[in-house]
Amino acid sequence: MNLCDFAPEYIRAIQPYQPGKPISELVRELGLDEHNVIKLASNENPLGTSPLAREAMINALNQISLYPDGSGFELKAAISQRYSVNTDQIILGNGSNDILDLAARVFLKPGAAAVYSQHAFAVYPLVVQTIGANGISVPARDYGHDLAAMLDAVTPETRIVFIASPNNPTGTLSEVDDLLRFLERVSRDVLVVLDEAYNEYLPEANKRNSISWLKRFPNLIITRTFSKAYGLAGVRVGFGLAHTDVADLMNRVRQPFNVNSIGLAGALAALQDTEFVERSYALNRTGMLHLTDGLRQLGIEYIPSFGNFLSFRVEGDVANTKKVYQSLLQQGVIVRPLGIYEMPQHLRVTIGLESENQKFLKSLERAIGELA
Amino acid sequence: MNLCDFAPEYIRAIQPYQPGKPISELVRELGLDEHNVIKLASNENPLGTSPLAREAMINALNQISLYPDGSGFELKAAISQRYSVNTDQIILGNGSNDILDLAARVFLKPGAAAVYSQHAFAVYPLVVQTIGANGISVPARDYGHDLAAMLDAVTPETRIVFIASPNNPTGTLSEVDDLLRFLERVSRDVLVVLDEAYNEYLPEANKRNSISWLKRFPNLIITRTFSKAYGLAGVRVGFGLAHTDVADLMNRVRQPFNVNSIGLAGALAALQDTEFVERSYALNRTGMLHLTDGLRQLGIEYIPSFGNFLSFRVEGDVANTKKVYQSLLQQGVIVRPLGIYEMPQHLRVTIGLESENQKFLKSLERAIGELA
Repeated sequence: MNLCDFAPEYIRAIQPYQPGKPISELVRELGLDEHNVIKLASNENPLGTSPLAREAMINALNQISLYPDGSGFELKAAISQRYSVNTDQIILGNGSNDILDLAARVFLKPGAAAVYSQHAFAVYPLVVQTIGANGISVPARDYGHDLAAMLDAVTPETRIVFIASPNNPTGTLSEVDDLLRFLERVSRDVLVVLDEAYNEYLPEANKRNSISWLKRFPNLIITRTFSKAYGLAGVRVGFGLAHTDVADLMNRVRQPFNVNSIGLAGALAALQDTEFVERSYALNRTGMLHLTDGLRQLGIEYIPSFGNFLSFRVEGDVANTKKVYQSLLQQGVIVRPLGIYEMPQHLRVTIGLESENQKFLKSLERAIGELA
Repeated sequence: MNLCDFAPEYIRAIQPYQPGKPISELVRELGLDEHNVIKLASNENPLGTSPLAREAMINALNQISLYPDGSGFELKAAISQRYSVNTDQIILGNGSNDILDLAARVFLKPGAAAVYSQHAFAVYPLVVQTIGANGISVPARDYGHDLAAMLDAVTPETRIVFIASPNNPTGTLSEVDDLLRFLERVSRDVLVVLDEAYNEYLPEANKRNSISWLKRFPNLIITRTFSKAYGLAGVRVGFGLAHTDVADLMNRVRQPFNVNSIGLAGALAALQDTEFVERSYALNRTGMLHLTDGLRQLGIEYIPSFGNFLSFRVEGDVANTKKVYQSLLQQGVIVRPLGIYEMPQHLRVTIGLESENQKFLKSLERAIGELA
C-alpha cells in the first residue's frame, strides 16, 4: 500500500498503548470463571462510583439522542467554583489523556522537544511521538522524578515538560519545594504539565494547593481526572486548568464534542459527592497499609506509593516476574507488568477492597512459593 | 504570554466549530420556558434512542468505575459481522468526528493538502487546519459535490479527499457511478474519506453497497456514526472501515480509551435493533414530505435532501435570514444558520416529530410574515 508510506515515519513507528487486560479478555483466554477474577491492573476505584453520579448518569440517558453540550457549561461552572478558577481557564477532556494529547498538539511539532521522567506515565512519550517531536526521558532518582536533572534537560527546543505527581506507576511524589523551584527556574516558554491524576489520594500532610500556583506561573497546566477517586473511568472525563491563553489554544484544537453527555453529568454530580471521595480515600489508606504489611511479611520490596496502587519487585530475574504474573493470572488476579516502564522486574497492583487485597496477597504468596 | 507564540500559526488561527445551540443555553439567554422549546438544529433523532440500547447503557453503568475495553472487542465483532469486514479493518472513534481527525493526523502534515467540497461538513476544514495542511475547497455544483472538479483539484501534495454522501448541510447525494469513477481515477496515494453519517436515511432506491468497494480501493475509508439514525449522539460513537494497513495506522494514533463504556454498550445494542432504525427511517420520510410540502406552500425554496434535515433559503437579503432565525428562536424553535457554510441566506432544519414539524412550519410562516 503506497498511501501508508506517506504517513510520517514517527506515526508508523508508534507502538500503541497496552491497556490493562480487561476481565472479559482474561476469561476468554484462560477459560476462567468471571466471578472469581479480580482486576487490580488499572488503578480503578474498587468502590465503584458515587451513587449521586450514577443517578445523574441514568437521568442523562433520557436525552442521549442529543449531542453533548460542547461547551460543558455546567461542569465548567462547578469546577470553576470548586477550584476558584475562571471558566476560561478550564479545558475539558475525554479523560485527562485527551488533555495531554491536546497539549502536545498545540505546543509541539517535529523538531520540538518534550521532557519527562524515566518510569513516568506511558502516555507522555506516546503523545509526543504522535506529533513527531523528540521525547527526552530523564533518568529517575529512587524511581522518582529528578527535577533538577529534568531542568537541565530543557533546551531552547523544549516546549513541554511533563511532571506526574504522584507518578504512575511508581507512586512517587515530588516535594512542593522542588516543584516550586522547578517552576521558578524553567523558562516561561516551556509548558509545564503537572499531572495530578492521583491527587485525591494524597494524605492531608502531603496535600498542596497547586492550583494557586497558576497565578504565578502562566506556563503551568494542571491536569486532573474523574477516572480515579471519582470512579468514572468508563465515561472518560478529565480536565486541565491553565492560563486563559493556554486554555484558549487547547480548546481550539479540542474536538467539538470530545466529552460525552453521560460523562458530563456523572462528573458534575461526582464533584459534589465529597463523602464518596472521602470514603474512597479512607479505603485506600487502609488497603495501602494492608498491602504494604503483607508485602513486608512476604519479604517483597515495594516502592512507597502516594497513589491507589503499589509497585513491587520480584526477586531474582525477569523470568521470575513473568512467572509470578502468570501465576497470579491463573489464580484470577490481574496486575500490571511494568516492562514498558523499564521496570521489568516490577509488577503494579491496585489497592482493592479488603477481600481483594487479601486474595491478592494469598495468590502472591502462592506464586512466590511456586518459584522455589 | 510568550509560550503561546510558539504554538503554530495554523493552531492560533483556528476558529472553533460552533455547535447547534443547546436548549439550556437558549433558555438561559432568552428566558424561555424549556418545555416550549424544540431543537431542530443538530440533526438528532427525534425518536430518541433504541430501548435496547438504553437498557444496555443502564447495565453498563454498573461497571462505570472500570476503564472501557480499549480494543472495543465486542462492538468490533458485531460491526465485522454486520458489514462483512475483518475486525482489523475497523477503527472505532469518539464520534465519527474522531475518525476524521485521526485520518488527518495520520495522512496530513504541513505542506500536504486535502480536498473537500464547498458547503461540505465544517469539520473537514477544521481537522485539516489543526494539522497545518492546506485545505482546498472545490466550488459546489447545485449545492452538491462536483466530483470531476474535485478530481482535478488533486495534486501530488494531496493526501486526503473528503466526500460527504449525503452531505451535511445540503443533503445532496453523489451518484454511485460518479463515486466509482472518482475512485477509479484518483491516485491510490490519496485517502478517500467517504463520510456516510446519514447513510441510514437513504431510500431503498438510493442505497449503495459502498462497503463492498473497500475490496477494490485500498485507499478508501468509509465513516459511519451512531449519532444519527441510531440516536446515540450523546455517547459519541462512530467508526471507520478501511484497508487493514490504513486502519492499523489510525489505531496507533487513536487515544487508548477514546470510546467510553456507555457508548460501546449502547452502540452494540443499537446495531441489533433494526426495528428502531426502520422506525427512525420511516418517521424521517414522512416528516420530510410534511416539511417539503409545507415549505412549498409557503413559497420557500429548499435543497432536496437525502438526510434527516432540510436547508431552505429565505428570500431577500442576509438580514432577512437573520430576522427569520431570531424570530424562530423567540418562538422556541432552534434551527441552524449556515453562514459558516457560505450559505448565509439558508437555514437548516432537522426533521422532527410530526408535532415539531408542525410547530416549525407555523413558526416559520409567522417569521416570514413578520418580514413584510
